[in-house]
Amino acid sequence: MEGQGKAIIDGNYERDHELAMTKSTTAGASCELVLRLLAFVFTIAAAIVIGLDKQSKVVPIKLVDSLPPLNIAVYAKWHYLSAFVYFLVANVIACTYGAISMLLTFLNRGKRKLLLGKLVTLLDALMVALLFSGIGAAAAIGLLGYQGNSHVRWDKVCNVFDKFCHQVAASIILSLLGSLAFLLLIVLLPILRFHRRT
Amino acid sequence: MEGQGKAIIDGNYERDHELAMTKSTTAGASCELVLRLLAFVFTIAAAIVIGLDKQSKVVPIKLVDSLPPLNIAVYAKWHYLSAFVYFLVANVIACTYGAISMLLTFLNRGKRKLLLGKLVTLLDALMVALLFSGIGAAAAIGLLGYQGNSHVRWDKVCNVFDKFCHQVAASIILSLLGSLAFLLLIVLLPILRFHRRT
Repeated sequence: MEGQGKAIIDGNYERDHELAMTKSTTAGASCELVLRLLAFVFTIAAAIVIGLDKQSKVVPIKLVDSLPPLNIAVYAKWHYLSAFVYFLVANVIACTYGAISMLLTFLNRGKRKLLLGKLVTLLDALMVALLFSGIGAAAAIGLLGYQGNSHVRWDKVCNVFDKFCHQVAASIILSLLGSLAFLLLIVLLPILRFHRRT
Repeated sequence: MEGQGKAIIDGNYERDHELAMTKSTTAGASCELVLRLLAFVFTIAAAIVIGLDKQSKVVPIKLVDSLPPLNIAVYAKWHYLSAFVYFLVANVIACTYGAISMLLTFLNRGKRKLLLGKLVTLLDALMVALLFSGIGAAAAIGLLGYQGNSHVRWDKVCNVFDKFCHQVAASIILSLLGSLAFLLLIVLLPILRFHRRT
């Protein structure tokens, strides 16, 4: 009788534990999915904003004082600067990985795949490194374009290409938000996975 | 008799399990300590190399064709470019954190402090973000100094300041090695901690 009672209690405990674990797993997977979706949306938006960034402007240049200034068309395109090319490529890689990892998380929700989990953590960390290096590069060049540098005689260009520079700034902010989502993923995933195991 | 046998078996199992766990914890903590030491050494080396980076050169400049060229002294210092300042600050923060976290890991080896573990993972991830953004910024400016950019009329400066540019490149490589150590830490720590728990 005592053994039977214990079995019932054990049975109840296991069922409750299983139920709690399933709830925790679902909540963890949902949180992970939301973060991956945000990372995907922000990085694809950043890639589109920088990829469509170009501006042409007619600038009056005075060659000789006695003659009226010549109107010359000048262009700014994102692929003129290698830092912006790297930034775009980093965001394209990150949003592609974001989409694939989102799909994998959705398909494997509720399951425990340790090797896949480790691989995803590694790739999340690589995305953070990739995105932040891209952000650093784009921001450094953006700041140079905005302020210029008298020591190396690099003149500012954002006084001419204002729209171009604003679009770069918007793209950097979007990419920063995406990389923060990846950063949150690598900080939160071990906690979420630990809860799934307990 | 049967119960006594089971107790002995259970006792042996627990002792073996405890022993295995202690060994695993020690190996995990050693691995973590080595990675933190590497991160500290590489980032402090990167900070020193960029912090001591300056070069002066005498450049002959021809103002008028009929006169001999004027010898003008030109200088390159790391703090002339804000990207290098950011890069140095990022490396100083990372090596300071590397030293503190190394000390904490050493003092808490063999203990399980969950909250401290989470905080360390968060800070490791922030160091990766900080270092990679600094590397991106320094590399973008370094590349610009090496190649120049005709579209925005930013001339290359590394043909004049060769030693300065080589030192920047060495510092970037050192910082990259340090940030890879931090990257390995955030990928490996959940695995090491998982082994410590099991």
